[in-house]
Amino acid sequence: MSDRFDFSVSATDGRARTGTIRTPRGDIRTPAFMPVGTAATVKAMLPESVRATGADILLGNTYHLMLRPGAERIARLGGLHRFMNWERPILTDSGGFQVMSLAGLRKLTEEGVTFSSHVDGSKHMLSPETSMEIQRLLGSDIVMAFDECPALPATVDEVAKSMRMSMRWAQRSRDAFGDRPGHALFGIMQGGVTRELREESAEALKAIGFEGYAIGGLAVGEGQEAMFGVLDYAPGFLPEDKPRYLMGVGKPDDIVGAVQRGVDMMDCVLPSRSGRTGQAWTRRGQVNIKNARHADDPRPLDAECTCPACTGYSRAYLHHVFRAGEMISGMLLTWHNLHYFQELMAGMRDAIAAGRLDGFVADFHARRAGGDIAPL
Amino acid sequence: MSDRFDFSVSATDGRARTGTIRTPRGDIRTPAFMPVGTAATVKAMLPESVRATGADILLGNTYHLMLRPGAERIARLGGLHRFMNWERPILTDSGGFQVMSLAGLRKLTEEGVTFSSHVDGSKHMLSPETSMEIQRLLGSDIVMAFDECPALPATVDEVAKSMRMSMRWAQRSRDAFGDRPGHALFGIMQGGVTRELREESAEALKAIGFEGYAIGGLAVGEGQEAMFGVLDYAPGFLPEDKPRYLMGVGKPDDIVGAVQRGVDMMDCVLPSRSGRTGQAWTRRGQVNIKNARHADDPRPLDAECTCPACTGYSRAYLHHVFRAGEMISGMLLTWHNLHYFQELMAGMRDAIAAGRLDGFVADFHARRAGGDIAPL
Repeated sequence: MSDRFDFSVSATDGRARTGTIRTPRGDIRTPAFMPVGTAATVKAMLPESVRATGADILLGNTYHLMLRPGAERIARLGGLHRFMNWERPILTDSGGFQVMSLAGLRKLTEEGVTFSSHVDGSKHMLSPETSMEIQRLLGSDIVMAFDECPALPATVDEVAKSMRMSMRWAQRSRDAFGDRPGHALFGIMQGGVTRELREESAEALKAIGFEGYAIGGLAVGEGQEAMFGVLDYAPGFLPEDKPRYLMGVGKPDDIVGAVQRGVDMMDCVLPSRSGRTGQAWTRRGQVNIKNARHADDPRPLDAECTCPACTGYSRAYLHHVFRAGEMISGMLLTWHNLHYFQELMAGMRDAIAAGRLDGFVADFHARRAGGDIAPL
Repeated sequence: MSDRFDFSVSATDGRARTGTIRTPRGDIRTPAFMPVGTAATVKAMLPESVRATGADILLGNTYHLMLRPGAERIARLGGLHRFMNWERPILTDSGGFQVMSLAGLRKLTEEGVTFSSHVDGSKHMLSPETSMEIQRLLGSDIVMAFDECPALPATVDEVAKSMRMSMRWAQRSRDAFGDRPGHALFGIMQGGVTRELREESAEALKAIGFEGYAIGGLAVGEGQEAMFGVLDYAPGFLPEDKPRYLMGVGKPDDIVGAVQRGVDMMDCVLPSRSGRTGQAWTRRGQVNIKNARHADDPRPLDAECTCPACTGYSRAYLHHVFRAGEMISGMLLTWHNLHYFQELMAGMRDAIAAGRLDGFVADFHARRAGGDIAPL
């Protein structure tokens, strides 16, 4: 453990890198996938089980936590780590992205955003200053700057105008964050799919100076090709010696492509949300456990997987408990999905360290192309 | 482990006894509480967690399993133990009780019961012979005879008529069960709250001969006083050297009173069902975690409890996740409740072995009378 926040790259392979973020609450091995614990819980999982999948860090959502149970309450109770029984690092988003998606229920000005709670309709304000204060109350290890992510479709002028306001907000976030040893503030690059705007945004953030840099405004419906198009150049605009975090990504093939392009951190609700709707992610692609073909299948979801769902249960059981609406269905499939995502990250870290990422990625795609095991 | 089914009493204290049921799948310490795994899962729990609470045996419901996923399917998949990943003993009910409660959807004759599935409306038949066959397909270690439990209110004549048919069905169950070393068949005493009928039922069952004897037809709305009234004499009608199982009981004070009266085994959905509705059972009585008084309370549900909910989380957290509708709420409260029930059984087993059950029971009631900890 370190008493401060730092990042070091231990190996590179092409544009991909592997390394370690050191924090007072523990190390984060990169490339890292962060499970999402929206309301102070990774849905359907106990935190010790999330850790057992290999997660070094969780993401918490400022928007949800400020509304319920409230940031002041969490602070009185000793902070988010103690509250949710997760003593390792936590990254919190700024609340901006979720507030922006409250179409019709929010009002945006240079000062910030006023909005109505989806829980009880009460009025709230989020700004760079209030977001920093809420994330401080939560006790987050990695705090995200407050930014705006424009809804698509947007013109280049709209994206530019929004990005420039986000850069003014980035400065206000930095000023409001203050001096907090052991804690990190990450700036967020915007600029849509326009290279010049991405570069302008990166320059503005670097001039302010952050402990890490996120790539925002992707994975919002632009498609994988457009996202990879931006990732072909955007990470290169950011400092080599700081972590690069791609927000809200993604599916396994999105993650692999992002790591190949120099991304160090990602988060997504996908593995947990899929787990609750009967969708499993495996080396052979996606499996819909609802499908009647699994009803009599004694084989595990993935014979090579060492998670509790694959070592203890047949597809027939997983099918049965999903159909019967039993909670164990979401518990086991979420565990499997998080395990698979973390194993994928570990595989990429090892491959980068060994200089064989291309081979790893080729194998990843070949096995997915083969598809799920044949029905009995 | 034993290669056969047997039962021995190691100590008695008043009418209470403690001992061990030995089966090829493991020992069952008595008095035993059996969590209910209706649809091949103890709701909101992984089986290794159920075991960690101290459970030696689970109960499965024949009615639910025969309809979904089907007994033949479970047999093809290697039996219920493998299917649900629980290698220790399983007791299955006969399906009779659940079918009888399908008022309007079932037809009762001397042969058995025809009924419509609550899942898909399909027609089914349960009789002593089909119930034995289904429980054999499931691979149950302790099989229950097929009986009728008359709906209350019922006249003494109706109860007598029903009990006598159940005794004919008990003989048919015994005949259909056959010779299955290592597996046990339990007969079920009926007779309502009428002493003469209970005695007649016990004599009929003893004349047939079973590996264990259940006391049925209680915990069906007659109230604790009437139930204890029957338990004051009914266990004494049964053989000393066979286990006595009180079906569907109950609340902690019901369980304590039943053990004092010579009961060896019980089952109930209460700890798991309560856990999913925000109700916790503790040494100090019931706690409704929904209540706003818990919203800021940093204290555990029960400071003396060693379960994951009490060692890892505050009442404030448990309140928050219940209010937010998070699955971890049901997971943690169910675990706590099952842990508490098993700890209560272990406490009684130790107290009986030490000849101090009266003191244990006095302390049990005194602590409950004191009520939950005061609000902050």
